[in-house]
Amino acid sequence: MPIKVIAFDADDTLWVNEPFFREAEEKFASLLEDFMPEHAIMKELYRTEIENLQLYGYGIKGFMLSLIETALRISDHKVPITLIDKILAIGKEMLAKPVELLPGVEEVLQALNGDFRIVMATKGDLVDQERKLKKSGLEKHFHHIEIMSEKRVADYEKLIRHLDIQPSEFMMLGNSLKSDILPVLELGGYGIHIPFHTTWIHEQVDHTVEHERFFTVDNIAEASELLKKMGTNS
Amino acid sequence: MPIKVIAFDADDTLWVNEPFFREAEEKFASLLEDFMPEHAIMKELYRTEIENLQLYGYGIKGFMLSLIETALRISDHKVPITLIDKILAIGKEMLAKPVELLPGVEEVLQALNGDFRIVMATKGDLVDQERKLKKSGLEKHFHHIEIMSEKRVADYEKLIRHLDIQPSEFMMLGNSLKSDILPVLELGGYGIHIPFHTTWIHEQVDHTVEHERFFTVDNIAEASELLKKMGTNS
Repeated sequence: MPIKVIAFDADDTLWVNEPFFREAEEKFASLLEDFMPEHAIMKELYRTEIENLQLYGYGIKGFMLSLIETALRISDHKVPITLIDKILAIGKEMLAKPVELLPGVEEVLQALNGDFRIVMATKGDLVDQERKLKKSGLEKHFHHIEIMSEKRVADYEKLIRHLDIQPSEFMMLGNSLKSDILPVLELGGYGIHIPFHTTWIHEQVDHTVEHERFFTVDNIAEASELLKKMGTNS
Repeated sequence: MPIKVIAFDADDTLWVNEPFFREAEEKFASLLEDFMPEHAIMKELYRTEIENLQLYGYGIKGFMLSLIETALRISDHKVPITLIDKILAIGKEMLAKPVELLPGVEEVLQALNGDFRIVMATKGDLVDQERKLKKSGLEKHFHHIEIMSEKRVADYEKLIRHLDIQPSEFMMLGNSLKSDILPVLELGGYGIHIPFHTTWIHEQVDHTVEHERFFTVDNIAEASELLKKMGTNS
């Protein structure tokens, strides 16, 4: 098998992330329940986040700013000023959370090291991702860490060039078809999709993917077995 | 001369940055003038920023969140809720600002290219720094772009290893003695300090630097002349 580099997405692939955003959104909705029902608040919040995405990028700080902006708008500026404190506290709590590794992650990284160069390729806020990596204790397994502002074809192209390999020698593992799989397949690389039970609407893809270099597994241990099987078949 | 890589800091070395923070702080202080005199507001804001630095890192989004937190605290939650809108607007305006190159930057990057590998090494928010780089039109001059969450000795060590050179082959140019010069000298590299008229208190160093691998110039064009002179003397 020609694959030299295995790149792992981080949020919801190596560790829990999206559920913490869902939790924060629920707290936010309950703060504003006098103004709007929860589903309408979620819709307004999503609208704010998408409007701000180009300006703020991904990550908790931009999320906090969008929560504040949404609270002001949907309450028509009728929320008490102390509610802003509560929103800041929700965000700071997210930033200070311990990292919760997904099952099997440590073992799989250990098992694959040696056979492949192992890379972490994650999208998001620089400080926040670096902090999570440090807390995770996983840093030692990675040959290279790439924290990207976006995961588009051009971003992967740059990463693959930087790793000094061909796209056909690159395999990406992650929970987002949109960010982790489709751009890599387009470049000529391989993708293993490990779905996670919660996905942000913005990352959802509404069609199924069929491709000779694409695989779906239930968890990271299965991905590892698949890689070993592919290795022995080469 | 053994220097192979010239690394440029970006904010207030290649383009204007700190004056936009000062402008924003003045607007913020005038919004809160009923509660406190300006100098006391600045002191409280700085306190908030330093308290949040580990959690938020550098950059405009963290600055916006600290402005909001400071406004709530110093007014004892007496500010009208519409003031939060005004703070969000101040921050968004900063994020959308065009990039203002400092005099001579384009010419110097052009002149040095070919003789050295030219790198940009900047601290701050990933999305924000990438946007400024894109707006600046300077991307084509750089062999490598490094956006760092911190500029400490260990961070430069990693960068120099990544560039596959020795510290003694590395020269850093920047406006901050603390972030751009001192850690590089400590590693065995070279530093050229180009002071800028405005420096954030957190970046200020209260002693003078004397070192055989350290130089101070008035502007980037002088730095370029110095580098050429050093080159011909080798």
